[in-house]
Amino acid sequence: MAEGVLYGVGVGPGDPDLITVKAMKLLQRVPVVAWPAPLEGESLARRIAAPHLPDGAVEIPIRMPMVEARFPAEQVYDAAAEQISEHLIAGRDVAVLCEGDPFFYGSFMYLFARMTERHQVEVIPGVSSLTASAAMTGAPLASRNDVLTILPAPLPEDDLARRLKAADAVAFIKVGRHFDKVLRLLEAEGMADSALYIQHATMEKQMILPLRDAPSGSIPYFSMILAHRRGDAWRKTEEEAVFKAAGSANP
Amino acid sequence: MAEGVLYGVGVGPGDPDLITVKAMKLLQRVPVVAWPAPLEGESLARRIAAPHLPDGAVEIPIRMPMVEARFPAEQVYDAAAEQISEHLIAGRDVAVLCEGDPFFYGSFMYLFARMTERHQVEVIPGVSSLTASAAMTGAPLASRNDVLTILPAPLPEDDLARRLKAADAVAFIKVGRHFDKVLRLLEAEGMADSALYIQHATMEKQMILPLRDAPSGSIPYFSMILAHRRGDAWRKTEEEAVFKAAGSANP
Repeated sequence: MAEGVLYGVGVGPGDPDLITVKAMKLLQRVPVVAWPAPLEGESLARRIAAPHLPDGAVEIPIRMPMVEARFPAEQVYDAAAEQISEHLIAGRDVAVLCEGDPFFYGSFMYLFARMTERHQVEVIPGVSSLTASAAMTGAPLASRNDVLTILPAPLPEDDLARRLKAADAVAFIKVGRHFDKVLRLLEAEGMADSALYIQHATMEKQMILPLRDAPSGSIPYFSMILAHRRGDAWRKTEEEAVFKAAGSANP
Repeated sequence: MAEGVLYGVGVGPGDPDLITVKAMKLLQRVPVVAWPAPLEGESLARRIAAPHLPDGAVEIPIRMPMVEARFPAEQVYDAAAEQISEHLIAGRDVAVLCEGDPFFYGSFMYLFARMTERHQVEVIPGVSSLTASAAMTGAPLASRNDVLTILPAPLPEDDLARRLKAADAVAFIKVGRHFDKVLRLLEAEGMADSALYIQHATMEKQMILPLRDAPSGSIPYFSMILAHRRGDAWRKTEEEAVFKAAGSANP
């Protein structure tokens, strides 16, 4: 009997309709579905995918303690990998649900690292929180020859300052308790005035605010700040823009 | 009568099943569909969306001459905006098909800039070529606290060199005739050996090769090179990785 395939399935940023047709079709047929969740409470990835999960699928919760310790997480992923391996060896495909896109800062990589040497693994890309957030703000993320940089906010301030100087458009991710640091960095570069704060993009509780109006004391970990060196870039540079579009054959 | 809404619709990177359910539902109901295309030949965006387009929809081709001149492009977008406006004013919704994601280096911004002051515009995000390419290579694009930078290859070499130094993971886009320059830059940073060349990700003619094996003389404009400062990063840093995952509450 052929072994099963492990699928890392991007389910998109939150709106259940932002799942891809490919992911939906796969979820409707896989016999085993694994999903990440906090130690107690709901899995966001599972909630997004819920309309497409078949009755009777075996479900494997991967519940992660929310503490900054290494060993519980290692053990949780080891145990999940073991469980999933058994299904694959028995010939059953397994879908691991991933918020956004599996390979864009996703926790899927911890399972991937454990499984890819021993099993067939395929990734179904999804709409990332990055482009979903830009869509919800109603302003282009990056265009023409902009350099776009994704900056994880937990990095040290001097490191972020250096990286920010090399960027035109930036997305700070994992903002959480690093909010004040990010605000300082953007102010130093003159980019704070037009920056936007986004949490829960495409979900019912979505919040989009000018950076300076964000509730700095209560910023969730999975929030984002989008900024551009040119501010409202798309308004100012239409001439330049059209130039490039016209040359899109191979300028 | 209420005016129509202009939708910028991400149709994903190429595989028709990588369109979102939201985009599919919208396309099935809109009376007017616009799409970009070369002056002669097929529209990739339309081909991707074709299975979902209703019979009898009005179609507006936006055919762009593939020359590096500004005025033809300006005139083409002006004319398209005019045509689209008439439908919107008459109360008809219009969907503009966009490869990948509309706000991720998309040509939709040229219409957006012309329409957003006068009409209601909504963007439906899509799977970008960036995450689709990573999925097809079978290696994470960025993880943990990686700084990920998107570098348009047409920028000057010294500018790119400076930006590259500030990045951990990079995606060079619009590679085309800039291939040799990108190869030199990655070699200078010691990142060329593990870099991957990708064209037509998720399409039948998809090609993924180690950078040094790419056909340097015939690189299409919409090709991509992915590289990481740590090379095969996910293999080497599992310990570090697990540390961060465990702290995902708000480290």
